[in-house]
Amino acid sequence: MSASVNKSVEGTHNLSFCPRTERALTERSVKPVIGDIHEECGVFGIFEPRPAKVADMVYLGLLALQHRGQESCGIAVCDDGVFRHKRADGLVSEVFTREVLDKLGQENMAVGHVRYSTTGGNDHNNIQPLVIRHIKGNMALVHNGNLVNASELRRSFEKSGAIFHGTSDTESIAYTIVRERLVTSSTEEAVERAMPLIKGAYSCILMTATKLIAFRDVKGFRPLCIGKTADGAYVVASESCALDAVGAAFERDVLPGEIVVISDEGISSIKTHCRSEKHICIFEYIYFARPDSVIEGTSVAQARLNAGRILARTSPVNADIVIGVPDSGLDAALGYSVESGIPYAAGFVKNRYVGRSFIQPTQTMRENAVRIKLNAIRQVVSGKRVVMIDDSIVRGTTSARIIRLVREAGAKEVHMRISSPPFTHNCYFGTDIDDEEKLIANKYSSIAEIAKAIGADSLDYLPVSELKNLLADTKMGCCEGCFTGCYPEDVSGAGTKNKFDEKIHK
Amino acid sequence: MSASVNKSVEGTHNLSFCPRTERALTERSVKPVIGDIHEECGVFGIFEPRPAKVADMVYLGLLALQHRGQESCGIAVCDDGVFRHKRADGLVSEVFTREVLDKLGQENMAVGHVRYSTTGGNDHNNIQPLVIRHIKGNMALVHNGNLVNASELRRSFEKSGAIFHGTSDTESIAYTIVRERLVTSSTEEAVERAMPLIKGAYSCILMTATKLIAFRDVKGFRPLCIGKTADGAYVVASESCALDAVGAAFERDVLPGEIVVISDEGISSIKTHCRSEKHICIFEYIYFARPDSVIEGTSVAQARLNAGRILARTSPVNADIVIGVPDSGLDAALGYSVESGIPYAAGFVKNRYVGRSFIQPTQTMRENAVRIKLNAIRQVVSGKRVVMIDDSIVRGTTSARIIRLVREAGAKEVHMRISSPPFTHNCYFGTDIDDEEKLIANKYSSIAEIAKAIGADSLDYLPVSELKNLLADTKMGCCEGCFTGCYPEDVSGAGTKNKFDEKIHK
Amino acid sequence: MSASVNKSVEGTHNLSFCPRTERALTERSVKPVIGDIHEECGVFGIFEPRPAKVADMVYLGLLALQHRGQESCGIAVCDDGVFRHKRADGLVSEVFTREVLDKLGQENMAVGHVRYSTTGGNDHNNIQPLVIRHIKGNMALVHNGNLVNASELRRSFEKSGAIFHGTSDTESIAYTIVRERLVTSSTEEAVERAMPLIKGAYSCILMTATKLIAFRDVKGFRPLCIGKTADGAYVVASESCALDAVGAAFERDVLPGEIVVISDEGISSIKTHCRSEKHICIFEYIYFARPDSVIEGTSVAQARLNAGRILARTSPVNADIVIGVPDSGLDAALGYSVESGIPYAAGFVKNRYVGRSFIQPTQTMRENAVRIKLNAIRQVVSGKRVVMIDDSIVRGTTSARIIRLVREAGAKEVHMRISSPPFTHNCYFGTDIDDEEKLIANKYSSIAEIAKAIGADSLDYLPVSELKNLLADTKMGCCEGCFTGCYPEDVSGAGTKNKFDEKIHK
Amino acid sequence: MSASVNKSVEGTHNLSFCPRTERALTERSVKPVIGDIHEECGVFGIFEPRPAKVADMVYLGLLALQHRGQESCGIAVCDDGVFRHKRADGLVSEVFTREVLDKLGQENMAVGHVRYSTTGGNDHNNIQPLVIRHIKGNMALVHNGNLVNASELRRSFEKSGAIFHGTSDTESIAYTIVRERLVTSSTEEAVERAMPLIKGAYSCILMTATKLIAFRDVKGFRPLCIGKTADGAYVVASESCALDAVGAAFERDVLPGEIVVISDEGISSIKTHCRSEKHICIFEYIYFARPDSVIEGTSVAQARLNAGRILARTSPVNADIVIGVPDSGLDAALGYSVESGIPYAAGFVKNRYVGRSFIQPTQTMRENAVRIKLNAIRQVVSGKRVVMIDDSIVRGTTSARIIRLVREAGAKEVHMRISSPPFTHNCYFGTDIDDEEKLIANKYSSIAEIAKAIGADSLDYLPVSELKNLLADTKMGCCEGCFTGCYPEDVSGAGTKNKFDEKIHK
Repeated sequence: MSASVNKSVEGTHNLSFCPRTERALTERSVKPVIGDIHEECGVFGIFEPRPAKVADMVYLGLLALQHRGQESCGIAVCDDGVFRHKRADGLVSEVFTREVLDKLGQENMAVGHVRYSTTGGNDHNNIQPLVIRHIKGNMALVHNGNLVNASELRRSFEKSGAIFHGTSDTESIAYTIVRERLVTSSTEEAVERAMPLIKGAYSCILMTATKLIAFRDVKGFRPLCIGKTADGAYVVASESCALDAVGAAFERDVLPGEIVVISDEGISSIKTHCRSEKHICIFEYIYFARPDSVIEGTSVAQARLNAGRILARTSPVNADIVIGVPDSGLDAALGYSVESGIPYAAGFVKNRYVGRSFIQPTQTMRENAVRIKLNAIRQVVSGKRVVMIDDSIVRGTTSARIIRLVREAGAKEVHMRISSPPFTHNCYFGTDIDDEEKLIANKYSSIAEIAKAIGADSLDYLPVSELKNLLADTKMGCCEGCFTGCYPEDVSGAGTKNKFDEKIHK
Repeated sequence: MSASVNKSVEGTHNLSFCPRTERALTERSVKPVIGDIHEECGVFGIFEPRPAKVADMVYLGLLALQHRGQESCGIAVCDDGVFRHKRADGLVSEVFTREVLDKLGQENMAVGHVRYSTTGGNDHNNIQPLVIRHIKGNMALVHNGNLVNASELRRSFEKSGAIFHGTSDTESIAYTIVRERLVTSSTEEAVERAMPLIKGAYSCILMTATKLIAFRDVKGFRPLCIGKTADGAYVVASESCALDAVGAAFERDVLPGEIVVISDEGISSIKTHCRSEKHICIFEYIYFARPDSVIEGTSVAQARLNAGRILARTSPVNADIVIGVPDSGLDAALGYSVESGIPYAAGFVKNRYVGRSFIQPTQTMRENAVRIKLNAIRQVVSGKRVVMIDDSIVRGTTSARIIRLVREAGAKEVHMRISSPPFTHNCYFGTDIDDEEKLIANKYSSIAEIAKAIGADSLDYLPVSELKNLLADTKMGCCEGCFTGCYPEDVSGAGTKNKFDEKIHK
Repeated sequence: MSASVNKSVEGTHNLSFCPRTERALTERSVKPVIGDIHEECGVFGIFEPRPAKVADMVYLGLLALQHRGQESCGIAVCDDGVFRHKRADGLVSEVFTREVLDKLGQENMAVGHVRYSTTGGNDHNNIQPLVIRHIKGNMALVHNGNLVNASELRRSFEKSGAIFHGTSDTESIAYTIVRERLVTSSTEEAVERAMPLIKGAYSCILMTATKLIAFRDVKGFRPLCIGKTADGAYVVASESCALDAVGAAFERDVLPGEIVVISDEGISSIKTHCRSEKHICIFEYIYFARPDSVIEGTSVAQARLNAGRILARTSPVNADIVIGVPDSGLDAALGYSVESGIPYAAGFVKNRYVGRSFIQPTQTMRENAVRIKLNAIRQVVSGKRVVMIDDSIVRGTTSARIIRLVREAGAKEVHMRISSPPFTHNCYFGTDIDDEEKLIANKYSSIAEIAKAIGADSLDYLPVSELKNLLADTKMGCCEGCFTGCYPEDVSGAGTKNKFDEKIHK
Repeated sequence: MSASVNKSVEGTHNLSFCPRTERALTERSVKPVIGDIHEECGVFGIFEPRPAKVADMVYLGLLALQHRGQESCGIAVCDDGVFRHKRADGLVSEVFTREVLDKLGQENMAVGHVRYSTTGGNDHNNIQPLVIRHIKGNMALVHNGNLVNASELRRSFEKSGAIFHGTSDTESIAYTIVRERLVTSSTEEAVERAMPLIKGAYSCILMTATKLIAFRDVKGFRPLCIGKTADGAYVVASESCALDAVGAAFERDVLPGEIVVISDEGISSIKTHCRSEKHICIFEYIYFARPDSVIEGTSVAQARLNAGRILARTSPVNADIVIGVPDSGLDAALGYSVESGIPYAAGFVKNRYVGRSFIQPTQTMRENAVRIKLNAIRQVVSGKRVVMIDDSIVRGTTSARIIRLVREAGAKEVHMRISSPPFTHNCYFGTDIDDEEKLIANKYSSIAEIAKAIGADSLDYLPVSELKNLLADTKMGCCEGCFTGCYPEDVSGAGTKNKFDEKIHK
């Protein structure tokens, strides 16, 4: 029932940069995937017409974006050209107490950031907003994404004597803009000149003494949208759910390549870099974004439902119930149920109190520990043939445990359906997927073998060719590089991380 | 469509103690209900055949019971008659670090507790386990429930010179047992003699130097069950989900009135107080317990599904979709959908990162703050006639906000269905419902008026008469006192809290 | 030059209880002493004529008493019969933030406590004030001292069903008073009846809903004094330095055996237990108390100077300079200098930033670690014959290290003089000296041997017979039990600590 | 008895830069001074011949240097070219736990820093070590001192597109070295070329992947010395007391202008910038440094004794006792006593438990708060004519309070003697004295008036002309700029701090 994985590359676009396509197609005939996937950031900015508790607003916005990064966070506010900021490791609710927010004061501009720090880069210096001063004054920058030419940029600045405090790409973006600022008469012009130099994914908000400047890379890898509150404040955020959180009405997405300038003179736009070709990261819909967000016109919840419906058509199965792995598998399960007519059920309870600080128990209890985070409901699955939907598989270890959980709760059969294609390649645009060699889809030569490895009665993935159908309402192409190895941007320079990147940490 | 609320008392049992029944029936003709409801405790105990990381096991068990109390927690272990314990305010994951657990050491017995502290009683001394020493040695006690004669007991002990450190009922239970221990030859006998003296709800685990003794009040208000691990350890816990968490197989519920003794000599039981009449708290199924728990033979998830199915029959409505308010409304919504044929949908996103430390924003943003915790998904509800299921209404304020949320997301109609009868009375057995005069069901004379007050197109509750049908597989009656004012136990002495109770705090 | 230690028992009083005298005199002919000595408590209480920031006052008072206990602290305030309190591990400045003090509010009575917890008793329940409720209302109790019949008392209460939460003597004192309160018409009468029952050392302050009651054991082992502020508030404290800290003028010491009652009706006194025989702990002057305190009419600074002067007469030496080991050896060194004419010098620098949290460095650096806390000044001691004064020797390890330090800094000779007699016995009245068998004075048969063991060119102690001369202005005898084994109170029941005492901890 | 303050400028050297001399001499005829003076830093570095617990060593060294800065601290270690670091606000003992030190690992090089942050600059980014990467690799820099051309340097780098993360001078030093590194073949050569460009005070330790480079400005404003441990490790530190702390023997001071390079190839030196003219900050001896440190051959304790002796000669007084204000007035008091023959006494008790977190009490108790930190001993000063020595007066407020304290304790007369000349000018070389207009010596026209203002019976300062006599054993001149306004370096560019400097903070 699970078709050959060869189909997973059917849908590749006509892209200029597919450096590993050959390998992807021939060297290994299967490339399904899995694991622990991390988005690196969420950004938020606000411009109030008059001084207000902007830090409180950013606080609410960041809470709504917390799913995009739980390791550190920060807020910078602008007080008449002078910047105050607070950045620290921890959740938004841990870092920002009433006292801290009050110290940030009443101002009319602020930016904020939530971050998941990738391995080796958890230096305090990397926590954003990046707040720096340069010849023209202060600047705060928040960034979601990843550059593919960061090393090259860094090297070129270092050649002229630049020093770097952290290892994030954000510092390279700041340097590029600051250098261009020397030869331009405004920061937005500096951004305009800088954008062709910084390659890869970046949805940024930059705060100067007088303006908020939001800009998005020309491919539009990461989302960025604009809203407006009843009292006239402009809000920029990674996802529309953060606009809801502060009571702002969604206005529109920032265009790929667009530079939006918000100041006392209102909102304006520089569109010289806007092109027709656009590639939003498809994994934003499948996993990262919140279901209540709308990105490029498509509801995330709807996209997941669609994925489930498509799976029901492309990978049908005789079963008694459909269950989803919380949280991102739930909507897809509902879609599968609707399309297949197999009843939907709530098969799991997820423990909301097991957080980052969870103590790994001793070896002998390791298996029980799975049940701490996720427990199957015996009365729901017992004696049933179960279709179980999850968003992806990385190494397969977790999937194997969940399947065992469901079987131990009495399920007669467990048919796993994945609402994305198999992971086979790295992401160079801001997602932290596992090492390619550890991806289960790169270890086995057929989906049937993977199914066997994880203990499923059957397994199937969403075909790559169907990805575009997830986004019924989106007029953008999507980046599918992690499934196909064909990226919308040349990534050949992206891999040269040196040891300095990897080892500086606090 | 919403019938007269008079029906809400139809189902009252033939109870001996209905001190306010008259008022309930005549003085006000409606008794619908409301608010922010709190369970006060979860208990966990373990007896290992040989020294093991018992504190780790309790840690896992308490994590699984964290939903029963998030304010403080504690673990006590027994090391050859000497007790070590750690108790503190905070979540289990905050209080118990690897270092703290390691300090508790390798032993063969331990008990643990999670607690929600009611107003005025957040003294550190009230955090459990209560660890005391008496003439026969050390004792640790954990307790879920509430006594109705606590003041009376306390007074009688004080008359003979007793001193109390905290304000919890638990100290009175301990005193009673200790006094009886003076005239008995074992702790279990002391418990046996004490039980008729302590009236009300109590599911307790008591640890002595050599035994674990679990006992449950004769009515069985609060759940308590026993499990066994593969290596022969006995586990006692408030809910079966905690047995799953430590890999223990469910053995059976502790009987109402039963005293279970676990020691090196195995497990034994004293059943002199076991009677046929039993009254489990119905709200355990509706709201408190985890869906994956099975209490007295009935799956909590199943009970909620049943509530939804019943509501679909007793309060049908023409609608396009059924949605549930997370988390406890979800299963009921699914049940309503199945029974009515109206499609089920995931209408909300709940923010998992907004915890106890959430900062109340300034007045002007208060309304937005609702959206921080719960957001409606526009694409799901827009243009739809929505049936929305929630577990209860306390004051109505929250319901009104959620309904507005759904309407602002575009819903054409919002028909609210509540998976429990209207709250009209206090609980004296361990649940912290709001003051009676603040309950919305006590403020209005008809369900239609309540519907209007909260802005619903229609509203209906689960009839009291249907409560027993929730528990298809349970051979116990249930306590419905908060809906009817008819309690299975005389509560006339329960209200005399004096000011000492209310004001001592840290 | 160092005389036989036999002289150290010359000065023993005519005491009734010398249970170990024989051993002390014959079994070993020398009883010099040692170690790390700890006072266990400081107490403070205030009664304001009208509501004020009493918690702030207690905070200041406890800061001034912090030297008497650095492990935990607490404050309880009385708000119209209702008690609020905060107790925690840590220094006063760590536990009491502005926020915590503000929460304690504006009231007119409060008591506070600083505590050094002895081994095995660091249960959170032992932190004072002990706040309890009994038949007549709330009570808060703070206690400095140690009972000799605590076990006996505890046992007798337990026999009637009492339960104990902690392991401190204070709980026994509270029980005794509460029991007597049942048969008396006021708390002060209850205290009066209780005092003959509680034996040993206790300087206590008890707060009821309306009164502050200070009482001191009949021997007056521990200090306790009364002061009055300009605005009419009465203050009770362990030492007069705490009166200075809150701007209160010293009024008088509480008499041994006296019960002082402070209420809206003013200050009154019950003196039925006051006797002529009094025994203040001599070590209060030598080590515990602050130099700026005056106890029973004698300035602590003066007593130390006297000790130095006496030593100069009883143990002269040819030397170039006199230095003192900070902090308690400094005044004695000055006295030695004045009397002998040998110049005084500041020979050491003590690092004020090495606190409780100092990390023990790895083995190879252990010796350097001594220098972290205390460094000798080479320019001061180099090439000199040095007289070095310290207050006591416990095990001798520290003395040996300090002597090595001074030698390595170039001293030609190091003559150690100790401003107290050798420690040879336990204290049962509130001081935590080391185990008797670890005391260096119990290990060697002559002072010369001890001198050799610690590497001193010569060593001598203050003769026991001179102790009374330290207190020129005090009309009280002193307890010298730790030097002679002859105690002013029968201590035969004091040693029966059971394992419950030792092992309960958090 | 107190001579005219005109004498305070007698001792000025023949300096090239006295921009305010005229004003200092004519505009106001008196310029005595005072206040709350802060050193900004202490530095420490270690190079072990083989991997060792270098972080532990730095920890001990920083503890010994904690008096030079208590606000933040940091350690960076080099692991084969990769740098790990930990920096945070707080005391060394608070920031560096066993866990944190262990994470820093076993390496062979490390640098550390303690810091007092001046107003407005408490950005986390300013905490040192500054750890950056540049074209040649990683670099960690610690710095004690202050540049006079920091703004100019910063501006020039910004003009070429540089970005700054913090506001400290240290970042400018790093930039200068990095720029020079581009055109040199080693870091030491880059330092050599950079030194003429960075003007002012700097005692620095720079760590590269393979070397430790210590360098000191050509005037030698701040101390820096070298030691060696028994196992061959080289240690560089601000003061010799830190060498003692790690068991290193003092080797020598780093010469003003010297660059010391320590690597696997041993220790070497570049002395191209070493000149004969040298100006150590005289306040290092009077106040900043620890008494057990030896700087440029002169013992700090000895220098203070000398100051006291000189004062006894230049400002004699008939009195009964001499007391010193702890801690830095104690040695000078001893010197005064020795020279004058007036007996020395310990007149104060300083509370060691009142730290940074001390809560300012309410207004009505403010005066008492002085007594919390410092209490006079009545028995010592009562009825006496007292000479009281302190190291300096800033605004006079504190002196006035201390004098009142001594009077209230019964002193008949209080004659204040200051072991330094009057403060009249800013320091531009790393000391944070108060604003010039707030200095008491700039407010009054004679010493007699100041005496009156602070309530002293008489007052006198150390004459400027005697400053050189403090340093009997030092072959260096000293900087007396804060007393004379004549600085050894042009400070005209030092005052142009812009608002970015002042307001960026966390």
